[in-house]
Amino acid sequence: MSEVRRYAPNQVTIGASWYPEMWPISEWERDADRMAELGFNLMRLFEFAWHRCEPHPGQYDFAWARRVMDLLHARGIQVMIGTPTAAPPAWLSTMHPEILGTGPDGKRQSHGKRKHYNHHSVVYREYCRQIVGKMVEALADHPALHSWQIDNEMSGYDYGPETRAAFHAWLERRFGSVEALNAAWGLEFWSQAYQSFDQVPLCVAEVGSRETPERHHPSLLLAIAEFQNEAWQSFIGNQSAVIRAAGEWPITTNKTGWVGGGMNWSPIFADLDCVGASIYADLSYYHNNVGRYDAMRGQKPGSPYMLLETAPNWSGGGPIWNIHHEPRGIEVMSWMSTLMGGCSTLFWQWRSHWAGQEMQHGTHVSQTGKWMPGKEAWQALASGYQQHGAWLMQHPPRQADIGIMVSTVSSWVFSIDPIHPSNRYEERLREDYHMPLVRRHYWRDLVPVEGDLSHYKVLILPHLPILPSATREGLRQWVEEGGRLLLGPLTGTRREDMTTWTDQEFGGLEELMGGASSVRFSPHWVEDTIEVLFDDDHRAQPRIWCEGFTCDGAEVRATYHGGWGHGHAAVLDHRYGQGRVITVGCPTDEDTYIKLVQELCADVGVGPVADGGDRVLVIPRDDQQGHTVAYAVINYGKSEDTVTLISDGIDLLSGESIDVECQMPPLSVRIVDIAS
Amino acid sequence: MSEVRRYAPNQVTIGASWYPEMWPISEWERDADRMAELGFNLMRLFEFAWHRCEPHPGQYDFAWARRVMDLLHARGIQVMIGTPTAAPPAWLSTMHPEILGTGPDGKRQSHGKRKHYNHHSVVYREYCRQIVGKMVEALADHPALHSWQIDNEMSGYDYGPETRAAFHAWLERRFGSVEALNAAWGLEFWSQAYQSFDQVPLCVAEVGSRETPERHHPSLLLAIAEFQNEAWQSFIGNQSAVIRAAGEWPITTNKTGWVGGGMNWSPIFADLDCVGASIYADLSYYHNNVGRYDAMRGQKPGSPYMLLETAPNWSGGGPIWNIHHEPRGIEVMSWMSTLMGGCSTLFWQWRSHWAGQEMQHGTHVSQTGKWMPGKEAWQALASGYQQHGAWLMQHPPRQADIGIMVSTVSSWVFSIDPIHPSNRYEERLREDYHMPLVRRHYWRDLVPVEGDLSHYKVLILPHLPILPSATREGLRQWVEEGGRLLLGPLTGTRREDMTTWTDQEFGGLEELMGGASSVRFSPHWVEDTIEVLFDDDHRAQPRIWCEGFTCDGAEVRATYHGGWGHGHAAVLDHRYGQGRVITVGCPTDEDTYIKLVQELCADVGVGPVADGGDRVLVIPRDDQQGHTVAYAVINYGKSEDTVTLISDGIDLLSGESIDVECQMPPLSVRIVDIAS
Amino acid sequence: MSEVRRYAPNQVTIGASWYPEMWPISEWERDADRMAELGFNLMRLFEFAWHRCEPHPGQYDFAWARRVMDLLHARGIQVMIGTPTAAPPAWLSTMHPEILGTGPDGKRQSHGKRKHYNHHSVVYREYCRQIVGKMVEALADHPALHSWQIDNEMSGYDYGPETRAAFHAWLERRFGSVEALNAAWGLEFWSQAYQSFDQVPLCVAEVGSRETPERHHPSLLLAIAEFQNEAWQSFIGNQSAVIRAAGEWPITTNKTGWVGGGMNWSPIFADLDCVGASIYADLSYYHNNVGRYDAMRGQKPGSPYMLLETAPNWSGGGPIWNIHHEPRGIEVMSWMSTLMGGCSTLFWQWRSHWAGQEMQHGTHVSQTGKWMPGKEAWQALASGYQQHGAWLMQHPPRQADIGIMVSTVSSWVFSIDPIHPSNRYEERLREDYHMPLVRRHYWRDLVPVEGDLSHYKVLILPHLPILPSATREGLRQWVEEGGRLLLGPLTGTRREDMTTWTDQEFGGLEELMGGASSVRFSPHWVEDTIEVLFDDDHRAQPRIWCEGFTCDGAEVRATYHGGWGHGHAAVLDHRYGQGRVITVGCPTDEDTYIKLVQELCADVGVGPVADGGDRVLVIPRDDQQGHTVAYAVINYGKSEDTVTLISDGIDLLSGESIDVECQMPPLSVRIVDIAS
Repeated sequence: MSEVRRYAPNQVTIGASWYPEMWPISEWERDADRMAELGFNLMRLFEFAWHRCEPHPGQYDFAWARRVMDLLHARGIQVMIGTPTAAPPAWLSTMHPEILGTGPDGKRQSHGKRKHYNHHSVVYREYCRQIVGKMVEALADHPALHSWQIDNEMSGYDYGPETRAAFHAWLERRFGSVEALNAAWGLEFWSQAYQSFDQVPLCVAEVGSRETPERHHPSLLLAIAEFQNEAWQSFIGNQSAVIRAAGEWPITTNKTGWVGGGMNWSPIFADLDCVGASIYADLSYYHNNVGRYDAMRGQKPGSPYMLLETAPNWSGGGPIWNIHHEPRGIEVMSWMSTLMGGCSTLFWQWRSHWAGQEMQHGTHVSQTGKWMPGKEAWQALASGYQQHGAWLMQHPPRQADIGIMVSTVSSWVFSIDPIHPSNRYEERLREDYHMPLVRRHYWRDLVPVEGDLSHYKVLILPHLPILPSATREGLRQWVEEGGRLLLGPLTGTRREDMTTWTDQEFGGLEELMGGASSVRFSPHWVEDTIEVLFDDDHRAQPRIWCEGFTCDGAEVRATYHGGWGHGHAAVLDHRYGQGRVITVGCPTDEDTYIKLVQELCADVGVGPVADGGDRVLVIPRDDQQGHTVAYAVINYGKSEDTVTLISDGIDLLSGESIDVECQMPPLSVRIVDIAS
Repeated sequence: MSEVRRYAPNQVTIGASWYPEMWPISEWERDADRMAELGFNLMRLFEFAWHRCEPHPGQYDFAWARRVMDLLHARGIQVMIGTPTAAPPAWLSTMHPEILGTGPDGKRQSHGKRKHYNHHSVVYREYCRQIVGKMVEALADHPALHSWQIDNEMSGYDYGPETRAAFHAWLERRFGSVEALNAAWGLEFWSQAYQSFDQVPLCVAEVGSRETPERHHPSLLLAIAEFQNEAWQSFIGNQSAVIRAAGEWPITTNKTGWVGGGMNWSPIFADLDCVGASIYADLSYYHNNVGRYDAMRGQKPGSPYMLLETAPNWSGGGPIWNIHHEPRGIEVMSWMSTLMGGCSTLFWQWRSHWAGQEMQHGTHVSQTGKWMPGKEAWQALASGYQQHGAWLMQHPPRQADIGIMVSTVSSWVFSIDPIHPSNRYEERLREDYHMPLVRRHYWRDLVPVEGDLSHYKVLILPHLPILPSATREGLRQWVEEGGRLLLGPLTGTRREDMTTWTDQEFGGLEELMGGASSVRFSPHWVEDTIEVLFDDDHRAQPRIWCEGFTCDGAEVRATYHGGWGHGHAAVLDHRYGQGRVITVGCPTDEDTYIKLVQELCADVGVGPVADGGDRVLVIPRDDQQGHTVAYAVINYGKSEDTVTLISDGIDLLSGESIDVECQMPPLSVRIVDIAS
Repeated sequence: MSEVRRYAPNQVTIGASWYPEMWPISEWERDADRMAELGFNLMRLFEFAWHRCEPHPGQYDFAWARRVMDLLHARGIQVMIGTPTAAPPAWLSTMHPEILGTGPDGKRQSHGKRKHYNHHSVVYREYCRQIVGKMVEALADHPALHSWQIDNEMSGYDYGPETRAAFHAWLERRFGSVEALNAAWGLEFWSQAYQSFDQVPLCVAEVGSRETPERHHPSLLLAIAEFQNEAWQSFIGNQSAVIRAAGEWPITTNKTGWVGGGMNWSPIFADLDCVGASIYADLSYYHNNVGRYDAMRGQKPGSPYMLLETAPNWSGGGPIWNIHHEPRGIEVMSWMSTLMGGCSTLFWQWRSHWAGQEMQHGTHVSQTGKWMPGKEAWQALASGYQQHGAWLMQHPPRQADIGIMVSTVSSWVFSIDPIHPSNRYEERLREDYHMPLVRRHYWRDLVPVEGDLSHYKVLILPHLPILPSATREGLRQWVEEGGRLLLGPLTGTRREDMTTWTDQEFGGLEELMGGASSVRFSPHWVEDTIEVLFDDDHRAQPRIWCEGFTCDGAEVRATYHGGWGHGHAAVLDHRYGQGRVITVGCPTDEDTYIKLVQELCADVGVGPVADGGDRVLVIPRDDQQGHTVAYAVINYGKSEDTVTLISDGIDLLSGESIDVECQMPPLSVRIVDIAS
């Protein structure tokens, strides 16, 4: 990684996506007036407007776009430009059908939806450079221009012939020779060895989106997922290079999903200025978003992220979901993003489409030009950010001491070979490891496996079978210098290509663990006959997969009772250098997990930032010297609740005095200044 | 629509489908004798016998067919000829593989099932004309010939290359220029605009059969469904023209499904002489058929329909269904059809197949020539029709005063964009709007959206987002002249191409409503927090989707309490000309619906024809002067029940005196003559 | 069938599959030492090692293989060679892509999994002969060579162009002329008649694996299944011929599934020396395996079968299953196989793969070379077989007096046309007919429809619509000579091509039945209104499908009450020659079934071999004179149980005296010698 790109705004932005190309010019001014009436200050434009900008090949028209930007600029509203590459025009598909994507079923996509292109296509990338270059040329000097978004909600793997050839070239670059490939993946297995790279099938590798994608070789499936992701990274780089050549605007894009889908966003955002996401959530599931923000903050520590799409009242894109807010919910959703480390909320979308998909989706303004429900909430948000945005940008969330390491690549391992039906990575991460800390107010990041460990005092590494060698070495140094590590379960057991180690089960982590594997077994269907017994009589039941240990320097903290591992150590505790490593042999339960985390935290003086309040978030905010001067408090539940803070203070939003026993109405937000 | 074709029989026919081509000639006479023994008077023949009629291209053989008809004629049995086009012979698929259909998966069908042809195929239509022409030539003069059925249970859309080209031509005929198409469908959306018609994809548009067929543009999906249906209409016209050129026999065909499938039967039956259907039903689900008959009667008012296929005892075509009657059930099923407006019952099928699909299906005679169960019921029916058929044809069901308007095209809107998982058109129509009237004995039609409104005093228009402009104008005049209209919910909100209106939410229906939309919102997942409060303290809970109103002449009858529409009007009541329009903003519950229907009916002196009897049907039958002279009464339930009639009378079937408090044994039928 | 091939070992073998080609030579010796340490005496090798044996076309290397065999031989361990044809090398797919299989979806498979070849491919078979020939040439003289396995877990149908052509040729061989085909399958039905064989579609016929494979003609689907199976038989014969030309080793292969899948194993094993199978089972489902062993014994009476794959502790090939044992369970699983008639247990697999699919599967040795859990159980088994193997081979299970006839072809009838959702052949066979006998300790075989009936005194024929004419004639003779036959339900109703009979419902079985069909009907959805009343007041409820009878010599034992068959006979009892036939008209319940079986058994003096013990198996073992000298007793349940034996005796395994009331600890095994 070269220099880390960062975005450092001095205000919070709020606005929406707007598609003026769908409307007669006569409607634009009224719409712009209404954005101003709400207090919006940033609109996302043009993201699907390629046809409007280039109605025929090489015939460009940006006058309309400048006119839209003029109208906004006149009202003090800035513009984020979305590059329109998610929606190539029909003439391009006709001239170059090879730019169309090919699905897992081997069928070429047709025109008329979005995202029907092949992100590997050399020709398509050339056309992307052209249209983005023309946009930059035409709009770069406009004073309303604020930032860029590349494409829209990118995702998906391609299986067409151009992609296959690119995959073979990628394999050759990675392995050098087919003999090296055969050796690395153990391809004497089932006589799978290749004589040339072009024999390697580009098989379906829909990792993340489903379990056991296909009965192909796991190392092959993993390689295909990595190859497809690298192509997404270069697809984006292809466009951002054009923009960067012309100016220093922040560039972002909107990811979807969390950490376990088919897209590995961490390396992608490393190349961009700002982490961005589309996040929709129903009133009843706001807790599912806490981890999204913890992960976005962890992906670019010290740099605020952007919420690029969220529903202004409801969404309505399908038959079986219809995400729903209420006015206070709209406010809470946006404040949650901002207070946990965001700098922007853009709603999707400004005005209801009068044609095309998603006509029923929630918006600010209806097709006929009426206000849709939620106006007071949008105005309250805009006003709140106007008033407190500068303070918020100067008082970011505290750098967390605790990190839970996450890895999309490791999630793919469990997608390819789940071991156990309940071993879904995102679900386990959220329910078993992340939310228990949230509910106990341990302030934490979700740290990508490539992240800078030096920020953290305590690291938790659950369900990460693949730990890259750089991470392994980083962890060793970090523990040696005093880090407290909770290692496992199910961590470090695979090489980077998903094969197992053949010398030591953990490929060298044994040094940190102070022990080694003595037995490895499945408890499936016999869980209730096995217990993990701790030295202090604490008991837990294993799930999913079990590892037993021998010691080499570590202390045994728990042993298996019953089952194939009877008598073997289940939890090790090892002092290493200035640090300490607790190794856990199997998934168990929340109490056992928290017990071990608390021990490690206590070692280094890390404690919770509040107490109580099951659906209440408490976020420490620091000044530029790193002193915590305020606690943001959010009750994202539908009932009143109370949380015990570290100190009393004054709510910056309401001006009220807040007691240490902080009462929180349903769906409410406070910023408790403890310094004043 | 040109002149309306009608069928006016003077007797009720009863019989079955027979496939003598499967059997040696030696078996025919015994079979024919048995048909006569039952009292059957109409048999459907030849519908899959193309190969037998034309075993090699251009080599015809109809001698066997005449021989079959001779045998029947000698026993006083008439013949409906099915054109054999559902089963093209193998030589035709071999000579012209382009006649084979192409499925949604892009695969061409193979020979060996039925209905494997492409109904758009020009070559196939030419062969259809030839075989039908030869049949007419060979059999037209046969004295047993009664009528014709075109093909069999037609359905399905085609996705092959010939169809794609035809679709492009159809689009050009409809829109004139691609610019007009782009404008009509708002194709700046997602850069979907086309430069030429041949760029438009023929994507999968399996509307009706499933929800959200594909994530393609809704206007495109709707257009494909319309195009495919128009081709079905011309496919049929291609054959009926050949028949009509030779004689005046009634022509029909057998639809399947009700009003919400992929086939829009109303325009098709407008071209034919008689509405026909295949209707199978289990003993426990007879109520599901009431609406089928109400719709068939409404499709050709004043003209009796034909039940072309129903099970003689059970059916057995698949692993997970096995429709089952009992002897009284067989009789009730047939009488229900006849008494509600039918003139014919044909069972499927006469004799069990000894080879091929559906060998276990219920029949009259087994493979070995034994009677299958049900003989007494078939004989009783034949005898009853023999005795009362002429009377029944002279005393048709009363023309209903109440119409529920139905539209297959509108059902497609909810298939493409259901808004809510429970918003399945047929289910809502049956459970929420039709059966409540049936159970309360409001005599009603289901009227197609193109129907003649002048028959009705009260019209109910639920869940009809697309109202064609002719219907809109017809409704305006009809209300002006005194009609009582229950408008909505979910009605009139879309243009004919499924786009929304951009000036007024209801595209001009506002004049009738005496008001306009003030807010539109989804109540999904928060239904229990919202109420619709009526002026008389009646309360209801909204479902699926809500519209709030402002008034312009109308009176507010109910308002929303809670939710995004709090305080907005939910139900409007408007006097317009001599008529009255009640507009309903959201689906609620049966009580609320009936309350409003009763008000409108009371206005124009329309009341129920009976009272009580949850699973009892009461059908008024009129003489030629329009005076109700009898009430047919059917208990389609498995327990005894009582219904209160308008008058006492004599049961024409049993000769018994019937009290006003009419006792109905389980699964029983009466025709209560009140005139005598 | 020519001479019956048999395998007559004099010891029990035990071992595992080993894939040394995945490991460096340096690991081999340690692995071999450990096999010896366990007491293993047979290892299965080379089954996927084609690439290692022939890394480039025509370039062979067997030196490594001989070295492996040397290592084993030095330790007294024999070798079963698996022909490596389940895993063709990449160079072969590249040179001859036509050898790749084509799936039901019409897509050609890709390299990189196993079993991706087309078993019809002439080219592939030629390559198979070559590699097997070279193996024979190189390894035949090795003293460790014990036996051969052809390929691995063969299954699947092919749908590619070469297969289609082969199918047309097969049809021509079977029918001679297309007219004969048309006549046999009744192809005037739906105009399906063909003019030439190449018009016949090779449609998807995945019988066994799912219900109603496709809506194609049932006789066509059945023919395709038979054709595909015959090709599997010749695929195997192609390889076994090469081996037999060189020596007299036993040849087997490992089937999967039971009797109702897509593979019809009986004719295949008729050509081989020994029945073999892969059988995995969870601790909680051991009862599901009893029938597998009864069927394997019945497939080659008097010849022991081989358990070729079973889990050494657990298996782990997928996300939703994870078969699990415990130490005693491992022993029970192996003993159950051996005591019921097996001669070998091979575990899958020796050592965990370090790459490729199924890395988590249970093994004996881990990737790093550690013992996996279960060592004591494996050693106990090896030691037990070492001690008692010779005795066991000299005292095989008693030849059963009772046979339940089974037929994979008949199971296909219910896959193509299930009639009723619960009519799944394997499930009905196991739950309704087989396990009731097992639980009551009636010692029985599952006899293939082609089996030799002379072994049996009582035969039970449930759910066998297709009885080949040889079987029909065999049954007639067998009954005439004194056999006791329980005929039906659902048996004998179809001709061999799945068409129905048109003269008599049972195609001549009427003679045996002493009666004929009088009515045939579906009780679906009205089961609770029908009863079958026996002469002794026993009552039963019919299910699935019903046949009523007239008598012609038989006595009526039960009649239908209610429903379409009211008053018709439901069960007939007929003395025929020296024998007796009870014909049952419909599936009912266990009590009724057992009642009838007991009657027939009592007739011929056949009784149970034990009493009590719900999850206890009792297996009579005979000396060479046919005298029962011992009873093997297995408690495969997790709780202690007691079974009443015929006699007390001495447990050969423990040396303990065993009382007639035999106490069995959970998961325990005894061999009670009653002779000593």
